[in-house]
Amino acid sequence: MSFTPFNAPLLGGLLGDVEAVACFSVKADLDCMVRFEVALAQAGASHGVIPAEAAQAIIKTLEGFEPDVRAIGMATARDGVVVPELVRQMRSAIGEPHSAHLHFGATSQDLIDTSLIMRIKGLCDLLESRLVQAESELERLEAAFGNNALMARTRMQAAIPVTVADRIAAWRQPLSGHRARLAELRPRVLCLQFGGAAGTLDKLHDKAVPVTGELAELLGLNAPARNWQTDRSAIAEFANWLSLVTGALGKIGQDMALMAQNGIDEIALSATGTSSAMPHKQNPVLAETLMTLARFNATQLAGMHHALVHEQERSGAAWTLEWMLLPQMCIAAGAATRTTLALLARIERIGSPV
Amino acid sequence: MSFTPFNAPLLGGLLGDVEAVACFSVKADLDCMVRFEVALAQAGASHGVIPAEAAQAIIKTLEGFEPDVRAIGMATARDGVVVPELVRQMRSAIGEPHSAHLHFGATSQDLIDTSLIMRIKGLCDLLESRLVQAESELERLEAAFGNNALMARTRMQAAIPVTVADRIAAWRQPLSGHRARLAELRPRVLCLQFGGAAGTLDKLHDKAVPVTGELAELLGLNAPARNWQTDRSAIAEFANWLSLVTGALGKIGQDMALMAQNGIDEIALSATGTSSAMPHKQNPVLAETLMTLARFNATQLAGMHHALVHEQERSGAAWTLEWMLLPQMCIAAGAATRTTLALLARIERIGSPV
Amino acid sequence: MSFTPFNAPLLGGLLGDVEAVACFSVKADLDCMVRFEVALAQAGASHGVIPAEAAQAIIKTLEGFEPDVRAIGMATARDGVVVPELVRQMRSAIGEPHSAHLHFGATSQDLIDTSLIMRIKGLCDLLESRLVQAESELERLEAAFGNNALMARTRMQAAIPVTVADRIAAWRQPLSGHRARLAELRPRVLCLQFGGAAGTLDKLHDKAVPVTGELAELLGLNAPARNWQTDRSAIAEFANWLSLVTGALGKIGQDMALMAQNGIDEIALSATGTSSAMPHKQNPVLAETLMTLARFNATQLAGMHHALVHEQERSGAAWTLEWMLLPQMCIAAGAATRTTLALLARIERIGSPV
Amino acid sequence: MSFTPFNAPLLGGLLGDVEAVACFSVKADLDCMVRFEVALAQAGASHGVIPAEAAQAIIKTLEGFEPDVRAIGMATARDGVVVPELVRQMRSAIGEPHSAHLHFGATSQDLIDTSLIMRIKGLCDLLESRLVQAESELERLEAAFGNNALMARTRMQAAIPVTVADRIAAWRQPLSGHRARLAELRPRVLCLQFGGAAGTLDKLHDKAVPVTGELAELLGLNAPARNWQTDRSAIAEFANWLSLVTGALGKIGQDMALMAQNGIDEIALSATGTSSAMPHKQNPVLAETLMTLARFNATQLAGMHHALVHEQERSGAAWTLEWMLLPQMCIAAGAATRTTLALLARIERIGSPV
Repeated sequence: MSFTPFNAPLLGGLLGDVEAVACFSVKADLDCMVRFEVALAQAGASHGVIPAEAAQAIIKTLEGFEPDVRAIGMATARDGVVVPELVRQMRSAIGEPHSAHLHFGATSQDLIDTSLIMRIKGLCDLLESRLVQAESELERLEAAFGNNALMARTRMQAAIPVTVADRIAAWRQPLSGHRARLAELRPRVLCLQFGGAAGTLDKLHDKAVPVTGELAELLGLNAPARNWQTDRSAIAEFANWLSLVTGALGKIGQDMALMAQNGIDEIALSATGTSSAMPHKQNPVLAETLMTLARFNATQLAGMHHALVHEQERSGAAWTLEWMLLPQMCIAAGAATRTTLALLARIERIGSPV
Repeated sequence: MSFTPFNAPLLGGLLGDVEAVACFSVKADLDCMVRFEVALAQAGASHGVIPAEAAQAIIKTLEGFEPDVRAIGMATARDGVVVPELVRQMRSAIGEPHSAHLHFGATSQDLIDTSLIMRIKGLCDLLESRLVQAESELERLEAAFGNNALMARTRMQAAIPVTVADRIAAWRQPLSGHRARLAELRPRVLCLQFGGAAGTLDKLHDKAVPVTGELAELLGLNAPARNWQTDRSAIAEFANWLSLVTGALGKIGQDMALMAQNGIDEIALSATGTSSAMPHKQNPVLAETLMTLARFNATQLAGMHHALVHEQERSGAAWTLEWMLLPQMCIAAGAATRTTLALLARIERIGSPV
Repeated sequence: MSFTPFNAPLLGGLLGDVEAVACFSVKADLDCMVRFEVALAQAGASHGVIPAEAAQAIIKTLEGFEPDVRAIGMATARDGVVVPELVRQMRSAIGEPHSAHLHFGATSQDLIDTSLIMRIKGLCDLLESRLVQAESELERLEAAFGNNALMARTRMQAAIPVTVADRIAAWRQPLSGHRARLAELRPRVLCLQFGGAAGTLDKLHDKAVPVTGELAELLGLNAPARNWQTDRSAIAEFANWLSLVTGALGKIGQDMALMAQNGIDEIALSATGTSSAMPHKQNPVLAETLMTLARFNATQLAGMHHALVHEQERSGAAWTLEWMLLPQMCIAAGAATRTTLALLARIERIGSPV
Repeated sequence: MSFTPFNAPLLGGLLGDVEAVACFSVKADLDCMVRFEVALAQAGASHGVIPAEAAQAIIKTLEGFEPDVRAIGMATARDGVVVPELVRQMRSAIGEPHSAHLHFGATSQDLIDTSLIMRIKGLCDLLESRLVQAESELERLEAAFGNNALMARTRMQAAIPVTVADRIAAWRQPLSGHRARLAELRPRVLCLQFGGAAGTLDKLHDKAVPVTGELAELLGLNAPARNWQTDRSAIAEFANWLSLVTGALGKIGQDMALMAQNGIDEIALSATGTSSAMPHKQNPVLAETLMTLARFNATQLAGMHHALVHEQERSGAAWTLEWMLLPQMCIAAGAATRTTLALLARIERIGSPV
């Protein structure tokens, strides 16, 4: 039992997800922040907010810029955010006179939030493609076993005979719903954060709108009508979506663990878990893992909603809480989709041939 | 400190909401269930699933039907659901031979879930109209005080001078977002539940689709492509929306409590709370209440997501958990919107005239 | 689905508990507050803090005092607490010149918190006696069925044969542990709250300690070394205990629901739930209810811990959140202990005779 | 925003704690499991359960044993637990004929839970010593500033003048309470886990009690009367204690952030955080971090209580959930105590000299 379940050498294979973890690596985070500054310089120069020469110097210097991660970590312990030291390092690399034009009009939160969103964008693609695969797998299972007999069970008691296709339909239904929800969410969630010190883009005056528009376009994000420095709705809504996904997959896991019980035997799984004390056992580990991940995300979601209560123009306390919760929720959703695909691939039989 | 905060004589005025509570009265619940049976009889007869005479007898008998609430309560302690006894009472009133055609093809969950949704529909209207009012009030305040000076504060420290209009914009932004989210949610949430014993509408055979369609139309709800007896996504998503709303209002409350501090004095409120020990105090009770309600709903939301993990075709345990959480979340959102309107009406000044 | 699960006519028999609900009635709450003022007058007079005549007038007037509940409710919507209006009513009944000596040195929180604790004291007795009964019932079941064969199941799979006594031992173990925990908790939880306006008992000067001691004794509570107006540790710890209890009972419920599955049939229960659609079913409703109550309290507990973060000398927001959560947790624990006793009494067989 | 807040290069200095993280390293975990097997061999041989020669071979081989971590990680993805592969590796190193006597009578859960507890033991010492230091620091601050004037604030409004000593007393009170609670908890939490395949120590027959006793003594833990494989009470209770600690420290943090507000200025802090956009700002980052950590643990605690609902003799799903939550709660408590000490050391003034 290590302190992080997601990439520890021992538990990462069970509870983690290499692709989702990659979205939240230190390197990915810093890279996105550097890209933000590059795009900001470019957009700023386009609209005469900073000199073109400064922008060129910034863009050139930051190409392949390698931050001193250790120094950033140490400064973050004091500043609460990585940006002041990162900006200091970038400015030092750029040198005078252009360095003063770096980060013009922006604030720490703009970089940190936008970097998060850039990585969530990739995560959305990852999760969506896995949901599509899971639905395909369920279709395949329906084709293979859909006509098999299954006892419907309600309130843990046998109800009436149905077919395997009926239960598979219940498993699939939320997955396609969640893809539709994701389509609605994307434009709201995948938004640039750009507000400056107090959310008013005070330094940009009448150039605020066009610079925001170009910056968003350069980063492949939407340009919101107004920044969301204290409006965490979309972030919380996305956390809700992650937990809807893990919840739907947890229901599948729970059903399969129940179906796999000795004495019930409604499902046959290959490559199940082994036991240190009982060699005969075939533990439905992947199914159980789905239940665990569902409850993990359900638990975290409450914290994301407590983090809605920002004080004034920026809450250090509420915002930092998101950092502790949301990336883990993303990876749990990654792990759950990955585990679902593995589990569906190991199904050798569902229900009873008629 | 009574056991229910929402309608108790002592705390109901502070933490409750008469209109939202009304949606969740026993009478409203039972009335909707009776309406379900009436509409089901009508739709069943339309499509030849039950005899027209039976439908007429059912409809006539149930007009003004008054269930024996006490007997239902007693039976519910055994059955876990109110419906078996309610159906028994309705059948007894209808009498043979028509009584056997009541509830044809339906199951307890169809009535209970549909009744919930019928009442949530009214709640959606209530909350939406209050959000509109709150936005209007904020516009009014912006017109009155928007040019006043305010110190932006980030991480609890003075940042840069802004105007009151800037902060009001931050308060309004999530509210209009939540109305847009509600518009998206309505068709997903306001759906008929109709699946029968195991979610397959087994008794309706080829009449399942048309009966479902007519039943939904009679009840003013959408007809889903398939029932949602175990797909609680829309319910959890709606709970998320309720908590987004209370979170956004909680942020307003927290800001106002901070602005009202002695020594800060960025807001003047009328009709504030009095103290039993310190007559001079002016407690920003309504602002604090908004913070409380935000944290209440954030807490409950986790439970609604744990309730996603339904076993098989119906989970008694997970479903009953919704009953304990969702109505309270609805009323907390009602109380928060009501309290917000009262608080906004008591603002006598924001910021400092310039 | 009504807004309160605990005493509503429909769901109260399933999810409520008459005895626990009684601890949190409006009448019980107000009675305890009036008793606080009576005892405070008596203790104040004993130590010369208020005139003996005033104390006599207060004590005499408050004997049988019937507050105007409706007026208190209305004032609470403004004040956030019931006490200012309650004190006003009591003072009006007492009349001048003695009325000024009522509530001397106290504040709203002293009355509200102490009233809560007085009622929790009764609840502790209730829950403890039910835990003792549950352990006795489990002993009885062990005597009756302990030697029966049962398949141990780990990770939802058959492990090795054990006896019914082995599983009953696992069910009993946490219950006796929780009684031991309660014994440790009682002195910490069952404490008078008495701190005055800012927790310093500023009006009592050198009489603070003896008045506190006598007041506590008169109310049958412990006298803490210092008030706990912002130290909510004991309250949160008690909430944790309530959820430990419901969690242990939820595990019993879950086991029984699993044992009762058709195809497993490791337990036989009488008087199970009936279904509106499937007359043959025997739903293990009480077992499911235990699972629901466990998850309800687990959910609420998070909120009680968020309420630890009080601002300064008293937090309206955090304190009010307790009011919305703790009484419900108490009643859920009452309902779970009640339901456990009912469920254990309906067991007709566990395991298989050997 | 990386996926783990606790040891990432960027955020570890802010949100992590080197000493607490060390308790939950992969190496510490595996070392404790190997120590379990060594002690089990020794205790087994003492009581004739395994041959003395086998014990000697086991002990000698495992001295300095270095497991193949990568292979364990891969097997864990299948088995759900690290133990089957770890035992296989140990057996392979020991060789026949003695290898069969390794792990005799034990099961995966015995190793995993005991390893957790061995490391929690060290964490308890760490946290206790920091609480003692924090109390000393508060005493020092009271000596330095206790007579300074402070306005008591209730419900976010000025109440009555008090002294700094009054507020410091409120900060200290829960800390000493939590040390007393820890003293009570230690014997319950710091218990060996030893139950074998189904919690019955079936392979040890009449040697179960003495082997358990010696095993516990060798590992420096208490020997419970019965294993706690499904009785997670002590674990959940410990999680509650961790959140009580972070809650009490979060209240201190919140108070300090409020006191540090411009316009309030009741506290002066050195070495505060810097801003990327506003060089003049002095952000109370450590105080905010305490608020974040309090809300983090409050959120996680709910999940630990959901994990109380174990199925039958061992729940893969509920148990794995603990792994995702409890180590993080431990480290958050480590981070909060560390941060508190740093924050208290940076206080240059509280209140106003009189």
